[in-house]
Amino acid sequence: MAQKTLKNLIHPVILCGGGGTRLWPRSRRSCPKPFLPLLGEQTLFQQTLARASDGAVFAAPIVVAGGDHVSLIEQQAEGLDAGHLIVEPCARNTAPAIALAAARLDRDAVMLVCPSDHFIADTRAFVEAAKAAAMLARADWLVSLAITPDRPEVGYGYIKRGEALESGYRVEQFVEKPVLERALEFLTDGSHSWNGGIFAFRAGALLDELAKHRPQMAQLVKDAVAKGRLDGMAFHPDAAAFAAIDGESIDYAVMEHTSRAAMVPASMGWSDIGNWASLHDALARDAQGNHAPEGSELVDCTDTLVVSDGPRVSALGLKGVCIVIDGGEVLVTSRDAAPHVGKLSGAKNQ
Amino acid sequence: MAQKTLKNLIHPVILCGGGGTRLWPRSRRSCPKPFLPLLGEQTLFQQTLARASDGAVFAAPIVVAGGDHVSLIEQQAEGLDAGHLIVEPCARNTAPAIALAAARLDRDAVMLVCPSDHFIADTRAFVEAAKAAAMLARADWLVSLAITPDRPEVGYGYIKRGEALESGYRVEQFVEKPVLERALEFLTDGSHSWNGGIFAFRAGALLDELAKHRPQMAQLVKDAVAKGRLDGMAFHPDAAAFAAIDGESIDYAVMEHTSRAAMVPASMGWSDIGNWASLHDALARDAQGNHAPEGSELVDCTDTLVVSDGPRVSALGLKGVCIVIDGGEVLVTSRDAAPHVGKLSGAKNQ
Repeated sequence: MAQKTLKNLIHPVILCGGGGTRLWPRSRRSCPKPFLPLLGEQTLFQQTLARASDGAVFAAPIVVAGGDHVSLIEQQAEGLDAGHLIVEPCARNTAPAIALAAARLDRDAVMLVCPSDHFIADTRAFVEAAKAAAMLARADWLVSLAITPDRPEVGYGYIKRGEALESGYRVEQFVEKPVLERALEFLTDGSHSWNGGIFAFRAGALLDELAKHRPQMAQLVKDAVAKGRLDGMAFHPDAAAFAAIDGESIDYAVMEHTSRAAMVPASMGWSDIGNWASLHDALARDAQGNHAPEGSELVDCTDTLVVSDGPRVSALGLKGVCIVIDGGEVLVTSRDAAPHVGKLSGAKNQ
Repeated sequence: MAQKTLKNLIHPVILCGGGGTRLWPRSRRSCPKPFLPLLGEQTLFQQTLARASDGAVFAAPIVVAGGDHVSLIEQQAEGLDAGHLIVEPCARNTAPAIALAAARLDRDAVMLVCPSDHFIADTRAFVEAAKAAAMLARADWLVSLAITPDRPEVGYGYIKRGEALESGYRVEQFVEKPVLERALEFLTDGSHSWNGGIFAFRAGALLDELAKHRPQMAQLVKDAVAKGRLDGMAFHPDAAAFAAIDGESIDYAVMEHTSRAAMVPASMGWSDIGNWASLHDALARDAQGNHAPEGSELVDCTDTLVVSDGPRVSALGLKGVCIVIDGGEVLVTSRDAAPHVGKLSGAKNQ
């Protein structure tokens, strides 16, 4: 039941997994990060679709999501093609999600895997990088869009650049989240990039590498698709087969094992909006580094973010603080602690 | 129309002026600081009355307040004697307010002037200090209860101790709010105390000194009382006479000019609860210095205060921050900036 490949077009595969507890209380399990208008009027999911909508470059998108979010997707994505919404029976991390889409595509289709909850400021740079990555993918490279770092981030994995290829580089090494000292080296040595979770694969090449490194997962995905059923725009893989998969990320399952890993460097104003401090960085800020809605008042504050769904916030003498009011919940976190918002019982027990 | 003096009893005079914008948004013009249960179940006003309620030491209290707060006082103070609520026609600072009460008392009555919005942890120490002050007041000293400093506070005036008297000291000098360097000296030199706004006077002595140093104010207070009218528990001084007064604090009008200024040192857990950081200091705190209501959650926070009239507050990674939710308003201030909450337009434009 593979889809027809449109020759030379890139097939966007939009992943809508993830709980998004780190943007609590704005992001909730019932409406997680991709489906919120965190930056601008469109949601991050809508922006992801729009970014890959140029019909001269991209084919119709495929969306992979959990059943809880089907109605949000139907509201926010108009006119997905029949079978282009793949509904995961349960969450099994990125490798099975990506493999589902690959198995639904023609083996020669080039897919571009895009998380739906990232922000990219420069769409043009994104499209150029996607085209370069697709060129390598057609030659059976498994390609990661490699984000040029702008800070010594210790929360991401890194990719080390190897020899030059036609439109990118071979990956010399995947590097686990570094300590600050190494992250500072990576920032200046020019050969390390962030692994941002955006990938280009020829569908058949991805499935072949998965079969090589994770044969059981590959077989279960194949079974789940073979026994799946189509229902309008939604395709439902077989629940039993999919549930039997041992969930794993695409990095661990394939990218770190394949000998065909490649990278295309991309400087495109990327942010994973991983927490309130990242969102703050992606928003327009005043000369003091503050961002606040109209009606709120900040006096003698620097690097301070205010997000409110109604109540006025008055802030005084703060440095590097995020204040978020949503649905009757009040969160106040230092920017430094923002990555740990998921620790709060409010975020955990939604 | 002077009240009868009860020989040897001290007449508490409770002052209920002041806007209290620095505890916004909890404190509002319509219900300012004295009338809020900020520490414990009783309001600061009720605690002030209770502190001076031992019938063996104190006579029935006199309350001086603005017309806006009469109903709050009637709710919170049961059974004030007839004429014992003096309603100021307008706000004219402390000297005229105190003089109104003095003019309503017998000249030989000893009055103890108590702000209604301070906190005193040790009632026993307060009563002992009041008795010592009253003893000096009977000998026509104008006595300030002098608070032993526990920090180098730059927000208060200081009193320098002079020669010893029977139950206190002569005041050598009133010192304006110092810079930090001097405040640090005062903290350790043992001869400087805070001027906490609690005074003992013989009513006649206070009126005589006022007539000497502020003759016009003394005359207008006399006129306002002479032309005043009694209405149940309330006494209403004449509005035209009182409004004609040039308002001034008792410190500027009398204490800094009289040759009979005395002081009684008091270590009684005093706080003027002048801002959210002061309130925080007076509240019970956990080992990390935090205070928060049940239901709120603080993770990796130190020296942080949460006050909420309902919404749950979740705080993460904060140091020295006060978060106050009240009536739909959200205030977040650093402890250092807490004295400046009155700058916020929310506090100013109530």
